Amino acid sequence: MEEKQFAFSVIGGDARYIELIQFLQAQSHQVYVYGFSNIDFPDSVILCDRLEETIQKSTFIIGPIPCSQDNYTLFAPYHQGSPILLKDLFESLSKYHVFMAGYITPKVREIAGDSFKIFDLLQREELAIYNAIPTSEGAIQIAMEQQPITIHSSKCLVLGFGRCGKVLAHQLQGLGACVSVGVRSVKDIAYISTYGYQPLFLKDLKKEIHQFDFIFNTIPSLILDQSTLLYVNKGSIIIDLASKPGGVDYEAAEKQGVKALLCLGLPGKVAPKTAGWIIKETVLTICSEMRE
Amino acid sequence: MEEKQFAFSVIGGDARYIELIQFLQAQSHQVYVYGFSNIDFPDSVILCDRLEETIQKSTFIIGPIPCSQDNYTLFAPYHQGSPILLKDLFESLSKYHVFMAGYITPKVREIAGDSFKIFDLLQREELAIYNAIPTSEGAIQIAMEQQPITIHSSKCLVLGFGRCGKVLAHQLQGLGACVSVGVRSVKDIAYISTYGYQPLFLKDLKKEIHQFDFIFNTIPSLILDQSTLLYVNKGSIIIDLASKPGGVDYEAAEKQGVKALLCLGLPGKVAPKTAGWIIKETVLTICSEMRE
Amino acid sequence: MEEKQFAFSVIGGDARYIELIQFLQAQSHQVYVYGFSNIDFPDSVILCDRLEETIQKSTFIIGPIPCSQDNYTLFAPYHQGSPILLKDLFESLSKYHVFMAGYITPKVREIAGDSFKIFDLLQREELAIYNAIPTSEGAIQIAMEQQPITIHSSKCLVLGFGRCGKVLAHQLQGLGACVSVGVRSVKDIAYISTYGYQPLFLKDLKKEIHQFDFIFNTIPSLILDQSTLLYVNKGSIIIDLASKPGGVDYEAAEKQGVKALLCLGLPGKVAPKTAGWIIKETVLTICSEMRE
Amino acid sequence: MEEKQFAFSVIGGDARYIELIQFLQAQSHQVYVYGFSNIDFPDSVILCDRLEETIQKSTFIIGPIPCSQDNYTLFAPYHQGSPILLKDLFESLSKYHVFMAGYITPKVREIAGDSFKIFDLLQREELAIYNAIPTSEGAIQIAMEQQPITIHSSKCLVLGFGRCGKVLAHQLQGLGACVSVGVRSVKDIAYISTYGYQPLFLKDLKKEIHQFDFIFNTIPSLILDQSTLLYVNKGSIIIDLASKPGGVDYEAAEKQGVKALLCLGLPGKVAPKTAGWIIKETVLTICSEMRE
Repeated sequence: MEEKQFAFSVIGGDARYIELIQFLQAQSHQVYVYGFSNIDFPDSVILCDRLEETIQKSTFIIGPIPCSQDNYTLFAPYHQGSPILLKDLFESLSKYHVFMAGYITPKVREIAGDSFKIFDLLQREELAIYNAIPTSEGAIQIAMEQQPITIHSSKCLVLGFGRCGKVLAHQLQGLGACVSVGVRSVKDIAYISTYGYQPLFLKDLKKEIHQFDFIFNTIPSLILDQSTLLYVNKGSIIIDLASKPGGVDYEAAEKQGVKALLCLGLPGKVAPKTAGWIIKETVLTICSEMRE
Repeated sequence: MEEKQFAFSVIGGDARYIELIQFLQAQSHQVYVYGFSNIDFPDSVILCDRLEETIQKSTFIIGPIPCSQDNYTLFAPYHQGSPILLKDLFESLSKYHVFMAGYITPKVREIAGDSFKIFDLLQREELAIYNAIPTSEGAIQIAMEQQPITIHSSKCLVLGFGRCGKVLAHQLQGLGACVSVGVRSVKDIAYISTYGYQPLFLKDLKKEIHQFDFIFNTIPSLILDQSTLLYVNKGSIIIDLASKPGGVDYEAAEKQGVKALLCLGLPGKVAPKTAGWIIKETVLTICSEMRE
Repeated sequence: MEEKQFAFSVIGGDARYIELIQFLQAQSHQVYVYGFSNIDFPDSVILCDRLEETIQKSTFIIGPIPCSQDNYTLFAPYHQGSPILLKDLFESLSKYHVFMAGYITPKVREIAGDSFKIFDLLQREELAIYNAIPTSEGAIQIAMEQQPITIHSSKCLVLGFGRCGKVLAHQLQGLGACVSVGVRSVKDIAYISTYGYQPLFLKDLKKEIHQFDFIFNTIPSLILDQSTLLYVNKGSIIIDLASKPGGVDYEAAEKQGVKALLCLGLPGKVAPKTAGWIIKETVLTICSEMRE
Repeated sequence: MEEKQFAFSVIGGDARYIELIQFLQAQSHQVYVYGFSNIDFPDSVILCDRLEETIQKSTFIIGPIPCSQDNYTLFAPYHQGSPILLKDLFESLSKYHVFMAGYITPKVREIAGDSFKIFDLLQREELAIYNAIPTSEGAIQIAMEQQPITIHSSKCLVLGFGRCGKVLAHQLQGLGACVSVGVRSVKDIAYISTYGYQPLFLKDLKKEIHQFDFIFNTIPSLILDQSTLLYVNKGSIIIDLASKPGGVDYEAAEKQGVKALLCLGLPGKVAPKTAGWIIKETVLTICSEMRE
């Protein structure tokens, strides 16, 4: 497939962004960079000294994920010198600019104003789907590290059959686990049977949960509450992938001696390079859509 | 799981319904039957002599799929004697009855009136999902029968990633094919990559279609039109699973010497017993939902 | 990979050989052909008028599979005119020739003498392994055609875990069946568990066989004898892939109303093109080994 | 399956043996234990105070894996007090005893003499096959921990297609990797194609090795020597599962900046409970065979 070349200014970001920059460069896009002191990039990546200069170089401005941790400064862990203020950044952007970043809070959006286009990368469904892969593998890695048994031949329960549940069930089965998936709807039960997993209605969770060695939760609500935890086998482990506050009553779990781990942000932690590749794909898709 | 027992009156239907009746009976439901002359059922299935009698026996009345082929008589290929008129059937039903059947056309619905509850089984998503399995296997069987090569190691293209496309891609990969899936949306492309298939944007179809040995279409629109068919490899085969009129310009295909088959109603044809099981599951789900 | 080019003389053979000739030609080998009247080949394939001429053209002489059905004439179903006598063929070969064919019986070998090199293609293990694929797919196709249920979700028993058992178990699992494999040795039981199939010791066959919808036999001994057949579920089917006389007491099966089919030579029947490709691979491997 | 009950004396061993003892007890076998100070076992497990007492209790004596690390004392890391001497143990055994342990060196065997039956558990093929699973998962866990990319979509090379290579290729493919397998024989190449992996002849290793992200070696010879390592991609990792000294020139790897890890004894390290289960299965199989 022939591909169009773009110019990007990447400002701030963590280890995933170091990979992102290299992936963009490897596909022959021009990349201007600010906020990555002392990082070695290939020669064709241009390191800028000043924020304004970086912004003037390209239409597409890529900000970090998350955009900001304090709604005031840009998230730029590799940046040395005085923090990059959101205010300074946004004031330099004109109506010709397209700004992409992740977790753009209402407060950040308010500071940004409406004089240029903004895309929240984390709102893009394809990014969420691709991220399900490193999330699933991270969960499997943790499961392997924590338990004295193999995934193969174990009984695994995946709670939820959204993006992450689908990939996790697929990979666990690929490793040879006996996989059950717990859901609410008759429709999902049908899909689950189709893929060869054991279907489990969530209303039967208490009755069935005792049999599982590994319990992976992807449902963002308190599904593993105090009374359900009573039925969990003490030797098993709960790996909770649902966004904060997660799907487990952690206090109750600790009291009852049930091992439960809240595992967030796995793609950046276990596979920053893959995470960088995913951001690259998403950024390029947005650019293509805008050119169409 | 403990299960509630129901009484059913099954009136009309084809080979799938003979299986349905036996599956219901095997799960200890009481079944009254009308419209199946000379069929041997287990003793506990009660064959009724008159329509009215059958209807009085139970709350749940199961009519055929399709409900009628002429909007006038009930579809009852195993029935001997004068046809069962929709009018007679519906007039016997009271507000306590629940009537389930398939392909209930607006005309049939008009005859039925609104004095009792009606469910169109084919509108149930779980039935459509389960039906994707015999549809997929039927397509694979036809592919095997028609071509002189194995599915294993062949290049297969699945057009569409809905219910049927998902199952078909999964099974073809399970047989060892190299599977590509053609879709429109970036989101589906992401899912397809996740499952390990080759993603193909439909806009690139003409450019890529020449390489495939088997082409399975599940998209209900004229995707394989005259100009696209020009690029299809002459030794390959198109198996079209999209509902009538299908996704292929059949006239053009014939002129150009491209083998293309429209394959409809596969579940009933290749796996009537599985199809009967699926109807049974759907019927029981409806009953459970009503009792809740 | 760079490849050496060879010249071949193909004499006799069935539909698989028509494919073989085209595969060889497509890889730029020179092919001389005798015994295929009225078959259209690509221009670069040279049709010879006389046997001697064909033999003189190349070092590698490819005879049919089976080499002969009567130990007297060459198996050449597409040949018109007087039969090709083994005696005539072999007398024309010199010590510089390499003759490859299949099912070379002791009698044929006696006629051939020892003045040139002979390879029996069917003795080559890689051919037997590759042939397991079309055999497995053929068995699955027949299973689909014969039974009113899907392979998906069915209970399948594979007897034996040799080449064919391995591929068949793999493909059936890929279609979503619940697969058991019956074997004798503890070692095979371990492998079977590893691949995620249900292991079954053959000594427990009578006790367990009732539960299966599809029974595939690959063991070349009378494993499904009269007394074992008594336990087979009447609605199920036995597909016997073991070479003649097969692994089923067919007379007893018929008396007891058990459906059992002896299915031999599946590669040539269901996938002649794939079968031709496999012969081509094997022939080229032999040539490469000789050049080393 | 009905099962016979046995009595076992377990003397020495590591964490896997704690699991072994519990698995045996859970299947209602009587277990006598010596060499596990301060370990809590279920009540029905009988802790013996003296070696002789332990030995007198049962016919089947289970010693550790490895049997001894110094050819003088029994390997008993949980034992407190003076070491258990091989000499003392073996002198207490009579011709009615069956002694099972692992890595029984010629020296140990000499000390044992021939007055009782000895089985080396590690010589049992089913144990080696089952051990391939935790070995494979351990290798995958290490691969996940060490590299910044996911296994999914990565290019993996497995060197060797024995027990461990087979399971590893299967699990890597199950995680969504693109799997190549490198072997010597044409026969293995055929099997590899059959399972849907990319076949690679070892003679082409230098030419192809650059493309892989993960390289898993299971071949117990110096396959990744200095000259081959030159072609390995610097960002990739070699995980060497071949028994000491392994299949990598580690000195050369370090000089050339190639990441290579020798990973031995993975079952006991990453999945001691699974490893204990495997030993239990093997012990019971030996007992069954002796009773037959």
